[in-house]
Amino acid sequence: MKKEILESYKGVRDFYPQDQFVLDYIRRVMSETCELFGFEHYGASVLESADLYRNKTSDEIVNEQTYIFEDRGGREVVLRPEMTPTVARMVAKKRRELGFPLRLYSIPNVFRYERPQKGRLREHWQLNADIFGAEGMDYEIELVALVREIFFAFGAKEEDFLIKINSRSVLDKIFNELEVPPLAAKSTLALLDRKAKISEEDFDEHLTRILANEKDAFLAALKHAEAEGELKNYLDEFKLRGINNVVVDSSVVRGFDYYTGFIFEVFDTDKANPRALCGGGRYDNLMKSLGQEPVPTLGFGMGDVTIRDFMDLRGLLPEYEPASKLMIMVLQDDPELKRAAFDLSERFRRANIETAVNYSARKFDKQIKTADKLSIPYVVALEDKCDLDKDEFTLIKLSDKTKHKLSFDSAVFFVTDSD
Amino acid sequence: MKKEILESYKGVRDFYPQDQFVLDYIRRVMSETCELFGFEHYGASVLESADLYRNKTSDEIVNEQTYIFEDRGGREVVLRPEMTPTVARMVAKKRRELGFPLRLYSIPNVFRYERPQKGRLREHWQLNADIFGAEGMDYEIELVALVREIFFAFGAKEEDFLIKINSRSVLDKIFNELEVPPLAAKSTLALLDRKAKISEEDFDEHLTRILANEKDAFLAALKHAEAEGELKNYLDEFKLRGINNVVVDSSVVRGFDYYTGFIFEVFDTDKANPRALCGGGRYDNLMKSLGQEPVPTLGFGMGDVTIRDFMDLRGLLPEYEPASKLMIMVLQDDPELKRAAFDLSERFRRANIETAVNYSARKFDKQIKTADKLSIPYVVALEDKCDLDKDEFTLIKLSDKTKHKLSFDSAVFFVTDSD
Repeated sequence: MKKEILESYKGVRDFYPQDQFVLDYIRRVMSETCELFGFEHYGASVLESADLYRNKTSDEIVNEQTYIFEDRGGREVVLRPEMTPTVARMVAKKRRELGFPLRLYSIPNVFRYERPQKGRLREHWQLNADIFGAEGMDYEIELVALVREIFFAFGAKEEDFLIKINSRSVLDKIFNELEVPPLAAKSTLALLDRKAKISEEDFDEHLTRILANEKDAFLAALKHAEAEGELKNYLDEFKLRGINNVVVDSSVVRGFDYYTGFIFEVFDTDKANPRALCGGGRYDNLMKSLGQEPVPTLGFGMGDVTIRDFMDLRGLLPEYEPASKLMIMVLQDDPELKRAAFDLSERFRRANIETAVNYSARKFDKQIKTADKLSIPYVVALEDKCDLDKDEFTLIKLSDKTKHKLSFDSAVFFVTDSD
Repeated sequence: MKKEILESYKGVRDFYPQDQFVLDYIRRVMSETCELFGFEHYGASVLESADLYRNKTSDEIVNEQTYIFEDRGGREVVLRPEMTPTVARMVAKKRRELGFPLRLYSIPNVFRYERPQKGRLREHWQLNADIFGAEGMDYEIELVALVREIFFAFGAKEEDFLIKINSRSVLDKIFNELEVPPLAAKSTLALLDRKAKISEEDFDEHLTRILANEKDAFLAALKHAEAEGELKNYLDEFKLRGINNVVVDSSVVRGFDYYTGFIFEVFDTDKANPRALCGGGRYDNLMKSLGQEPVPTLGFGMGDVTIRDFMDLRGLLPEYEPASKLMIMVLQDDPELKRAAFDLSERFRRANIETAVNYSARKFDKQIKTADKLSIPYVVALEDKCDLDKDEFTLIKLSDKTKHKLSFDSAVFFVTDSD
């Protein structure tokens, strides 16, 4: 049998306990912070009907990067590339029963078919937090405040990340005033999106090709919009609410077509990590595209891969701790001793101590090595059932290999107290 | 636009906050109990290479019920129908680094293409708990003890469920002794698996067709195995360890081909719920089928759909509580008041109170209705910034619509204390 059968599918990840521990930590911090802001947890299947995505997200994503296939009944099915169409569909379906403003969050896995590279995999886990029925700047600021709080909860400082804001409607207004045709406007947005990834010369050359004579007027209008008017108001309002690491940046446009107003992206201030850490904005018309009345809505997404890189760069990743606090080692191949080990494990669990049992009856040193491999911090060695009857246990602390003769209650106290 | 675009894909579920709340509860109880037994959390992608499943699970599952498709690079990909091949692959890949006995659990979503019906959907969430490097009966009993503890943690009583045990090796021995050809043995297992779902006459007729003259000898051998020998030993050992709701049942065979010894299934004692609630067993040869040295292994699976039905039948489902404890209602469309609401929400959050804000400035009654729809238990009404300066808040308890004039600290105490 070929070795490659042991590998995961290309571009997705196996989560061994050490990896899962980090993912669980990231998910827990995201969840707790969202809930602190009054967001409610929801979920949906990774499978969606392909119809949901047509004309809703950017063409690139629907056509080139989507996992799409026919099921056995001839239905076209998609592995969701993003969560926004799903949550919009769900809210549209029950809008009469739901209360607005409605704050929802989920941390789904999303799929893109692309060449795996640093920070970009075929599957990643992505926090999505959205507010439906959210008219006005206050919700936009709240959403950014939530993002900021998540970074703080991960242990980041204000100077570690920068929030870049912009507005699709401001850009649209400029395109209108300069009478830029829709296709050229779209190309310009795509070019702005790539601005940080290409050279200044390349940017300039492409922009000239798209906008020709209007290029200079466009750049001047952008500059003007960055300094005054709507975007300046946002900046002032953020400062008034104590959020200071915000700048206006007209190159922030977001990849999806559905944004209609305020948009933002968060960047690592360390240039070694140039990819956006998260982003979002207002998308008031997505419900309309589902055949429903429009609902003012905004939201953002934050992926686990980029966040993990950010934390890694700053030493913010938590150290692995297994669920098991204690391993009971059975040292004799004796049915009665094993039964006693079972009973003892039940006692420790009733005392809320996560307890594994090694029934293998292998040598002491070998079992200690197993506990070490599993990072289990404490071990109880069972050699003789009489020790149990005497209520006397040999507890070993793995970090320094010290042995302690203890009663059951003292052992519980010893293990619990060190948490 | 057609209404059906608002529906989820057939046979999968949307989890609105009320539904997600139940799923999260089920997942949390499963996780906590597994961790109490020293099982460590792992995960993997729902996408697997199709090669992993060939010749490993039962034919029915690979051929008829599997979601299988070609990716854009021509690779055959499967949406995992079960987790066992994945975890076996992962353990095989790193077996030198891992410590054994290795207890692992995960609660993945798994997919089957079949006609959706009660208790059977195309996607469900399934706890998988496995022990690798687990030789002997002690681990089998531990695994069943874990299953039992999960039921207890859900609030079930011992009389609510019955654990039926059997042994594949005992069945194999009977087939060998009676010289039943492999194909007939396989058909007999499939028939035993369906025994509870068909009439006694049908069972008898089918069995006669498969085993012909050996039928009576086979039934006698089954009866004998149920009462004596290996299976009787299991029963005695379960009783010695205080696990009493266990019976031997030779019709328990499990659907997968990879089981090699001890197997079990758990049933609701209420006949209104006839489907197995969970099951598992020993599969010592799965590693070998991956081209690795065999490892004694056992595990079980428990799905969220059947467990939910079980809990529903007994009134064990938890009542919905939203994450949000408090909603701040802004009652005037005043930028300064909104800014004050933002600041106040930050204060409540720092006091660990999950707080949503309604910036809509709609009428008092409408906003109260929103809070009711969202099931948020407390509301603070903000009409005038001066109230904040005076440190005087109107807190409304939604359950009885009582109003309380309170300072910030008292409001925090009031909301927190009622948890």
